[in-house]
Amino acid sequence: MKTYSHLDLFNDSIPKADEDVHLGRHVLAEFFECDPNTLNSIDKVEKYMMEAALECGATIVQKCFHMFSPYGVSGVVIISESHLAIHTWPELGYAAVDLFTCGSKCDPKVAYEFLKNKFCSKNASFTELKRGIISPDAMKVAEKPFEIMQQFQN
Amino acid sequence: MKTYSHLDLFNDSIPKADEDVHLGRHVLAEFFECDPNTLNSIDKVEKYMMEAALECGATIVQKCFHMFSPYGVSGVVIISESHLAIHTWPELGYAAVDLFTCGSKCDPKVAYEFLKNKFCSKNASFTELKRGIISPDAMKVAEKPFEIMQQFQN
Repeated sequence: MKTYSHLDLFNDSIPKADEDVHLGRHVLAEFFECDPNTLNSIDKVEKYMMEAALECGATIVQKCFHMFSPYGVSGVVIISESHLAIHTWPELGYAAVDLFTCGSKCDPKVAYEFLKNKFCSKNASFTELKRGIISPDAMKVAEKPFEIMQQFQN
Repeated sequence: MKTYSHLDLFNDSIPKADEDVHLGRHVLAEFFECDPNTLNSIDKVEKYMMEAALECGATIVQKCFHMFSPYGVSGVVIISESHLAIHTWPELGYAAVDLFTCGSKCDPKVAYEFLKNKFCSKNASFTELKRGIISPDAMKVAEKPFEIMQQFQN
């Protein structure tokens, strides 16, 4: 599997000179009035989260999902571009979903629309935040190698 | 391992009558000017994230961490109370950390202070958002069992 550093992904988009840039986009979605049976199925929740990652152009790295007793699913899909996370409250028809991506190849809004549709949410909203807002000067630091005490080995 | 539904955790705190309540607290932390070698060590990042979960009173359910080539670590700790997530850019000395908890037993700010210290961040900030803001009327729905087409089996 090809892997990328987060900075490779950031470099997909070329910032304008002297303009603050951000490393990632984080969409915090609130899905109310969803289909409770979908939210209580770990198979469906995992399937839709994985599909959402692919739909928005992400590369899947790892996943982990957990079914709570008696209700609710939590899960995360780690992508090369950051992560997608979900926590469901089937008894309330509610799911909290995080769609955090970096680079310009992924659009978290695509994943948002996809999941809103799959969960049949009749009352959905989101907040979008920029993560890692840095100046162009700070970016220059990244061009210099930092002292590595522990080498990556794989 | 004892598991809880998200609603059990929510019920730890008793909301006042006629007051909107929220199911979770989400702290989005921005750690700048961190020690780059710590941020590039998957062992240290995983260790500190797991410890942060325990420090803030959470129950760990699952974890998954990934080392990028050449730099950077992504990882998530799923807790009974939601999740802790991290993405590091060692070359920039930056880490984006999410601390999402539900229930009154966990305090995400404790995890924030713990990680700020472990990563030696000299420039840290956070945004806190409420997740799953619902009315007391909506909570009553949860007292009625919903139709379950797929039973939980474990």
